[in-house]
Amino acid sequence: METDKNIPQVEIVAVGNELLNGLVTDTNSTFLSAQMRAHGLQVARVSVVQDDAVAIRSALDQALSRVDLVIVTGGLGATHDDITKQVLADYFGTPLVRDPKAEAMIRTFFEKRQKPVPEAALRQAEVPQAGRTLYNDQGTAPGMMFQRDQQRVYVLPGVPREMEHLTRQYILPDVATVGNLCLQQRMLLTTGVVESALWEQFGPLDALESLVKVASLPSHLGVRIHLTAQGKDENETTAKLDQAEQLLRDVLADYIYGRDEETLESVVGKKLVERGETVAVAESCTGGLIGHRLTNVPGSSRYFLQGWMTYSNEAKIKNLGVDARLIEQHGAVSEEVARQMADGACQRAHTDWAVSVTGIAGPDGGTVPKPVGLTYIAVAGKVPTVCQKFVFPQDRVRNKERAAQAALNLLRQHLIGLK
Amino acid sequence: METDKNIPQVEIVAVGNELLNGLVTDTNSTFLSAQMRAHGLQVARVSVVQDDAVAIRSALDQALSRVDLVIVTGGLGATHDDITKQVLADYFGTPLVRDPKAEAMIRTFFEKRQKPVPEAALRQAEVPQAGRTLYNDQGTAPGMMFQRDQQRVYVLPGVPREMEHLTRQYILPDVATVGNLCLQQRMLLTTGVVESALWEQFGPLDALESLVKVASLPSHLGVRIHLTAQGKDENETTAKLDQAEQLLRDVLADYIYGRDEETLESVVGKKLVERGETVAVAESCTGGLIGHRLTNVPGSSRYFLQGWMTYSNEAKIKNLGVDARLIEQHGAVSEEVARQMADGACQRAHTDWAVSVTGIAGPDGGTVPKPVGLTYIAVAGKVPTVCQKFVFPQDRVRNKERAAQAALNLLRQHLIGLK
Repeated sequence: METDKNIPQVEIVAVGNELLNGLVTDTNSTFLSAQMRAHGLQVARVSVVQDDAVAIRSALDQALSRVDLVIVTGGLGATHDDITKQVLADYFGTPLVRDPKAEAMIRTFFEKRQKPVPEAALRQAEVPQAGRTLYNDQGTAPGMMFQRDQQRVYVLPGVPREMEHLTRQYILPDVATVGNLCLQQRMLLTTGVVESALWEQFGPLDALESLVKVASLPSHLGVRIHLTAQGKDENETTAKLDQAEQLLRDVLADYIYGRDEETLESVVGKKLVERGETVAVAESCTGGLIGHRLTNVPGSSRYFLQGWMTYSNEAKIKNLGVDARLIEQHGAVSEEVARQMADGACQRAHTDWAVSVTGIAGPDGGTVPKPVGLTYIAVAGKVPTVCQKFVFPQDRVRNKERAAQAALNLLRQHLIGLK
Repeated sequence: METDKNIPQVEIVAVGNELLNGLVTDTNSTFLSAQMRAHGLQVARVSVVQDDAVAIRSALDQALSRVDLVIVTGGLGATHDDITKQVLADYFGTPLVRDPKAEAMIRTFFEKRQKPVPEAALRQAEVPQAGRTLYNDQGTAPGMMFQRDQQRVYVLPGVPREMEHLTRQYILPDVATVGNLCLQQRMLLTTGVVESALWEQFGPLDALESLVKVASLPSHLGVRIHLTAQGKDENETTAKLDQAEQLLRDVLADYIYGRDEETLESVVGKKLVERGETVAVAESCTGGLIGHRLTNVPGSSRYFLQGWMTYSNEAKIKNLGVDARLIEQHGAVSEEVARQMADGACQRAHTDWAVSVTGIAGPDGGTVPKPVGLTYIAVAGKVPTVCQKFVFPQDRVRNKERAAQAALNLLRQHLIGLK
């Protein structure tokens, strides 16, 4: 993976006992790392330390011996454990003074909630005299920034929402001018193909890598392709990313369903809205997960009308009109039943499309001819009913997730005319 | 929060560029921290560094200047970025030699998958001569352990599953004898009450805190209460945890649904199996999430028979028998409709229980009398049908999650006769 020493380096000091006893994962550093990358800087190290003056001081000291920009998160709360502010003020040799604007914001915060202002909360209005206050309208603890010669230390509360807010409001505008080259990232989202097959199909990487740095991130739901372009300005980096994306789409269009923050269900939803069409679902082993995902999208009531969770055979027969003899002959987990489930859902819901899933999620219920993970997925409606067979190799929850992903992808492929 | 200097201290060095560019969160350190805590040790610091020899060496050096036990994760893969093994071998001044058992395991790994063994994979069988090999039957990269006087350094692959496996197999048995006092943890899971109300209801903490250290971890789905007991052996810590749990249950029985790895859906499932009863669901705004959660539990086909996702009014009327005039009079999001949905699901599925949800998940669709978040949840079956009203204050996805949680909790309370 790429490490570029020409990029300005940043270090993070994450403070908090809760980060070191297994209760809380330090996702703040992930957010900050991504933001720094997007703004042309690189986080070179994260030090996670306890709420302990010696530990905080030593981590800060070491970080400032290596880099000029340090971000400290956590330990700004109102309880006696929260010592970060005092340690930083001591480190920079400046007293704490009450900041009138911060105090007013804290009072407003509690007034809005119609609650009295606790004395401990007001102490959060005390900020280091020599620092710059980073006013926090998402919570009660202001952040702060210290500058010493070329070096800057930002101190942010550990609550993720407040930390993100202050980063966007104060740090990103500052660092935008620090990087002397522009970096831009894009994530292409694929599903339905494993990592090795994807790159084998794509072929030689030379042309692609002359434009961007490429990282591929596989998971059981698909491979994400992460592109980073470098250039003198955003015009150049955008052009490089567009070219790179086109190279990938030329070969991998079947698998690429979206980019960056898109989800498979949002892409399916967008297509259905564009086409003015509706969908129903008939879920056996996924138990409602496809409906759940479709309805996570705001506005999905425009195209998602109804669905059935038909776990029992009786439900498949009664609610979807599956032929009881078919179940007897082929079993509930069979191509025949998947097809009838999709057909039945489409007819009974009067929708343009229906997607069905029947499978053996595991861990029990598998046999030699029908192993755990065997899943049939059908799409019916505007095309002659189609059915795909899968054998998912994982545990119950992951098999359900893979089945729902494959079902949404099969629907997507038909919506855009790929299959 | 608790920091106890009598507890043996551990440091973690997590290696990997992907951990520092915002693509991957370091969850390995969370797992290791929790495991160390559970075995009477404390992770004092985590240093996340790039795949860079200088950075790895300096982090290791500093860690060994503070503690006697260091765990290094990541950078043991087969690509040229993965330099951890070489850096560690150099650090301890020992050459790499091929380990025949590790080589045999790698060959078996590929044979099972009917694939040729890549040369790069075989290089993973090279281990430092002076180290102890931690054989990895979950992947191709073995871990290793170096010992120098009283100091030990464990090196594990970064793939979470392999890292966890080697931790359980090699590190935990070793460290079990390191701690000179026994620490034991327990997590009590609550839902349906906010943190402040929970502790207000519980009252003074003195008796509880004389037994255990208490931390409460709120989320939108409930408050987790984390207890840590300290004692000379496991008998003592278990007794303290049991007493502490009883103190909490005496007051908070209504809210405590389980402990440790339990989920609300697994608790509901267990109760249904015990009672030999079945359940159906009728979901509007949750869109299938309750069915999804119920069917995440292995063996749920014993009690979950079927469900309906009735997003449209027509579906509520046709599939569940909701009275069209009721919808016209009261709206689809109303107590009357929630009750009829639950009744209809119970009757049509021939189940002992049914739970229904109708609500406005947002972000659109709210009005002054019926704001976003307004949700009615009903339970029907073995008790006279009951309905609860909620107004959830968050975004669409969180409102759905809260509604499903509240629905499962209402069912649980009726299953155990609490309501």
